[in-house]
Amino acid sequence: MRLTSYTNYALRTLMFAALDAPALVRVQDVAEAHGISRTHLVKCVHHLGQWGYLDNVRGRGGGFRLARPAETITVGEIVRRTEEGFADPSPDAVGDPDDRLLDATFERAQAAFLGVLDRHTIRDITFNDADLRAALGLDGPLR
Amino acid sequence: MRLTSYTNYALRTLMFAALDAPALVRVQDVAEAHGISRTHLVKCVHHLGQWGYLDNVRGRGGGFRLARPAETITVGEIVRRTEEGFADPSPDAVGDPDDRLLDATFERAQAAFLGVLDRHTIRDITFNDADLRAALGLDGPLR
Repeated sequence: MRLTSYTNYALRTLMFAALDAPALVRVQDVAEAHGISRTHLVKCVHHLGQWGYLDNVRGRGGGFRLARPAETITVGEIVRRTEEGFADPSPDAVGDPDDRLLDATFERAQAAFLGVLDRHTIRDITFNDADLRAALGLDGPLR
Repeated sequence: MRLTSYTNYALRTLMFAALDAPALVRVQDVAEAHGISRTHLVKCVHHLGQWGYLDNVRGRGGGFRLARPAETITVGEIVRRTEEGFADPSPDAVGDPDDRLLDATFERAQAAFLGVLDRHTIRDITFNDADLRAALGLDGPLR
């Protein structure tokens, strides 16, 4: 089982925005801090904006910031949006009777997985760790 | 999040063997019932044999059968073997302080996922469903 890179980018983008809030963050900063391609991040930031998690400010001096407080965004809700098959589990199961028990078992396991992620917010995974700010070169005063 | 086809093949192979136990099953039968490539299944059956889940009988009239009762094999133990990163979660986390909270969250979620699968055996996902035998064309007496 692997989560997609896209989920990883989305969470890191939100964490970065949480860390710098309420300042605007540039895609370039996230790309450099995490060694992620700028192109992939632009797409991710765009989607997070459409979903209402980021305010995107265009133009020179622009960037993005959290549109909602970090403590109101759960990891689970992000993963449901970024991972296929999580919002609507096992549509294939219909009409395939020999899959029913197997699918039901994995649906239950997936619910347990998401249940844990629903109990953690972007704030939880971003803060409570002094090393985090240092690792991102943000241990000085907030910009 | 997607489980690999390999996990899917392994579970279906074990379910098929459980259903036909103690008769020998041919790879060809599983391949046809599930529309899976024979080549992929041969590899899977070989590994399940090495891990002690199947007895493989070579030669004409050969095949495979469960080496252990279906009720003693959990879905969780199979998935830990067939999915990368489940036996030894997040080795990448070491030395990457900004990943620590994110990793810990996903490790907890993964433990919950596997916890559910540990409570279900091959027997559980194979039987208790009359439709299963019919779907596999096995609704007659056991061979």
